[in-house]
Amino acid sequence: MGEVKHLCLVKFKEGVVVDDLLKGMAELVSEMDMVKSFEWGQDVLNQEMLTQGFTHVFSLTFASADDLTRYMSHERHAAFAGTFMAALEKVVVVDFPVVVAKPPPPLPA
Amino acid sequence: MGEVKHLCLVKFKEGVVVDDLLKGMAELVSEMDMVKSFEWGQDVLNQEMLTQGFTHVFSLTFASADDLTRYMSHERHAAFAGTFMAALEKVVVVDFPVVVAKPPPPLPA
Repeated sequence: MGEVKHLCLVKFKEGVVVDDLLKGMAELVSEMDMVKSFEWGQDVLNQEMLTQGFTHVFSLTFASADDLTRYMSHERHAAFAGTFMAALEKVVVVDFPVVVAKPPPPLPA
Repeated sequence: MGEVKHLCLVKFKEGVVVDDLLKGMAELVSEMDMVKSFEWGQDVLNQEMLTQGFTHVFSLTFASADDLTRYMSHERHAAFAGTFMAALEKVVVVDFPVVVAKPPPPLPA
């Protein structure tokens, strides 16, 4: 069994200070050992027809489904999720085992 | 400037043979040198309130925004995108420079 990802696509409510939420999320994730890695990004092409208004992606990677479950059920996650969800106009969340169809090239030696 | 991701979240129309599309996508991506890596996954938690009905994620990674542009404007991408989009009930696409907030641990030596 390989890695599992927890992916959130969001649109923030107007007036939300995104930087504050990002800081809170980075802090939480850095202190939670079961989170293997965390990356995020902000859409840059702004093609409303394709983005449906979603602007940010947050992607957490776990070594196993068990680690994901431990994270989701952790009280610190629950506390942050409450604050985070309240700041969103809309959100989609998917959780999936990662299938690597084309692996990245090996790093140069 | 770091990596750029092209992320698609989709819900397929009923009756679509997802495996055939996946095969076509894997073939396309393997032959397109500007695609650095490709991974995908199918949501496993099926929490309709969170997934909004989306079932699959496709994530392409590029070494640069230029490579993403070259891919998007390539005639082979355009040909496949036509087939792919026709099979979707709904789709969200976002393109974003990747911010690595928590890097994965180094591989054991």
